[in-house]
Amino acid sequence: MQADFNRLQNFVASVFESIGTPEIQAQLAAEVLVSADARGIDSHGVARLAGYVRLFDHGRLNPNPQIKIVHESPSTAVIDGDKGLGLVVAPYAMEIACEKAEKAGTGWIAVRNSNHFGIAGYHAMKALNHQMIGWAMTHAAPLVTPTFSREKLLGTNPVAMAIPALTEPAFVADFASTAVAYGKLEILQRKGLNTPDGWVQDAEGNPCNDAFAIKNGGALLPLGGDREHGSHKGYALGAMVDILSGVLSGANFGPWVPPFATAGFMSAGESVGIGTGHFLGAMRIDAFRPADEFKKDMDKWIQRFRSAQAVEGKQVIIPGDPERELEVERKAHGIPLLEPVVRDLETLANRFNVPFILA
Amino acid sequence: MQADFNRLQNFVASVFESIGTPEIQAQLAAEVLVSADARGIDSHGVARLAGYVRLFDHGRLNPNPQIKIVHESPSTAVIDGDKGLGLVVAPYAMEIACEKAEKAGTGWIAVRNSNHFGIAGYHAMKALNHQMIGWAMTHAAPLVTPTFSREKLLGTNPVAMAIPALTEPAFVADFASTAVAYGKLEILQRKGLNTPDGWVQDAEGNPCNDAFAIKNGGALLPLGGDREHGSHKGYALGAMVDILSGVLSGANFGPWVPPFATAGFMSAGESVGIGTGHFLGAMRIDAFRPADEFKKDMDKWIQRFRSAQAVEGKQVIIPGDPERELEVERKAHGIPLLEPVVRDLETLANRFNVPFILA
Repeated sequence: MQADFNRLQNFVASVFESIGTPEIQAQLAAEVLVSADARGIDSHGVARLAGYVRLFDHGRLNPNPQIKIVHESPSTAVIDGDKGLGLVVAPYAMEIACEKAEKAGTGWIAVRNSNHFGIAGYHAMKALNHQMIGWAMTHAAPLVTPTFSREKLLGTNPVAMAIPALTEPAFVADFASTAVAYGKLEILQRKGLNTPDGWVQDAEGNPCNDAFAIKNGGALLPLGGDREHGSHKGYALGAMVDILSGVLSGANFGPWVPPFATAGFMSAGESVGIGTGHFLGAMRIDAFRPADEFKKDMDKWIQRFRSAQAVEGKQVIIPGDPERELEVERKAHGIPLLEPVVRDLETLANRFNVPFILA
Repeated sequence: MQADFNRLQNFVASVFESIGTPEIQAQLAAEVLVSADARGIDSHGVARLAGYVRLFDHGRLNPNPQIKIVHESPSTAVIDGDKGLGLVVAPYAMEIACEKAEKAGTGWIAVRNSNHFGIAGYHAMKALNHQMIGWAMTHAAPLVTPTFSREKLLGTNPVAMAIPALTEPAFVADFASTAVAYGKLEILQRKGLNTPDGWVQDAEGNPCNDAFAIKNGGALLPLGGDREHGSHKGYALGAMVDILSGVLSGANFGPWVPPFATAGFMSAGESVGIGTGHFLGAMRIDAFRPADEFKKDMDKWIQRFRSAQAVEGKQVIIPGDPERELEVERKAHGIPLLEPVVRDLETLANRFNVPFILA
């Protein structure tokens, strides 16, 4: 099915309103969630809507949170999300980051007591309109083994950074600290195919090619894959994200990060902090250099890299280019939804008596 | 040869003094440089001393720089290193970062007009004594191809982060954004061995196993190796480091970053900014959480990861553990130096008439 972008976003907002989210917050949450579908990161979009509702059903999500600053300095704050939607808590935190950066040059917000925040890139990009560089990170429930570990201790822990240019579109990096996104395993599972080397390991910690490895006690591997190819670097990067999102905010961390709501995997388990955490930042360009000079140099950086001599049949890509192009295309011509996702959305429409007209 | 740590450091300081570096700065530069040897990152230690002297010989290094702040806000500054040793400019910048963090919560310094700064980890660790998290990044001359590129546009661009704990030693990540350090290629070159897959490509951009690939027009690959294994993530990380170190500071960037002084590769070439850049940061822990609570949680993080069930015969390693253990060992029992490095140092000793007693 091909869903119209605006209708899909309105439908999502209606579902969030149905569980008690105030209208403006529901619209914001829908915007963040559907931006993932528009940008081609389908695993983080409306495919997760039923999961957010399950979090609500199990008392792990507060639909009308009192988000508050619990501690701050001129360039920092810790925010308690009051068990709210990360889709709402993170934009709030990012606004504080930009306000702090306006005065102090930079703003850095550690968030606790939140939930899954959608795609990191959305939040980082919020800084662009303020002539700022945006940062966004989040930890997530453990699916990843540190180098040499058999135990899953880290999430896919993404890092995003958005950097404005002058005439060129912004540089937008947004990547998990793993060799591959979990969504790519799901595609292979559906096709009955094996994974390439270096993506997953089995329950004993041996390299394997089983697309179902995680369900069988195995794990995703950190970026790098194995020690010889630098997996200790992917592990270190994922650890940095976990410590900034979890330890610095007072949230849970490492293996204690609560799972997203997938069937049979509901309980948050033992706790060493408060909920899930994120780490967001904004850096005002002209706290370093005149913004126009910087942006002119970014144009030069982008043009030089984009026009680099490439291997035959390929082109060097600027981080953010493919997602931006897809966003234009999908906003104009619709968002493709898989059958199981459509069925999930229909179930929600029936439950909440929300009109289900997406095309 | 096994060199005594203190004697080696004094020798290095004498050489820096001989080219006109003031005594205190020469001692600092020696401390930074030899810390690389002590921590086992031999490629960034005294093996490079002759290179720094060649930079001086070719007018690219100012031994007595007037380092100055050219722009600042409460939590940021841009520092011009006046062509000084990165080994001196970066510690100066890191002090400013910590002073700013003392007042504003965090401090972020973009540095331009500097030179190679040794190991990133040294600088990040300077924040630890102030109850702060330290960050250090630097770009470097192009040896690395973005995904799909045949042209080398990025350096090995490392990221370091040091995070204090309470009873446990600090977490210290320090890693290049490439699949492998250039020093590992040199080891294979000496042994006449090929590289594993995923480390290098040839001049046409094809994967290859030639340890001399770079000398033959090839390149180091970003962390991830190839697209299927996430090289676009290593490329994005290296690009972030380049933009923060180069574009944000007003230094050169991308393929224009001036080379370190290796024979036949002296000229800085076309320029799009001023010299080489770094990016350093300090975050005061209690600008987020009471430092003791945070450090207790870091202990828990470290102990949980270190004691994780490991693959047979292995142990999960906390970033920084191997380097710290080696540092203790080498400070006590000496630093092994390869024959060609000893010969380089002897040449410097003769040229500057500096006593050469290292053992």
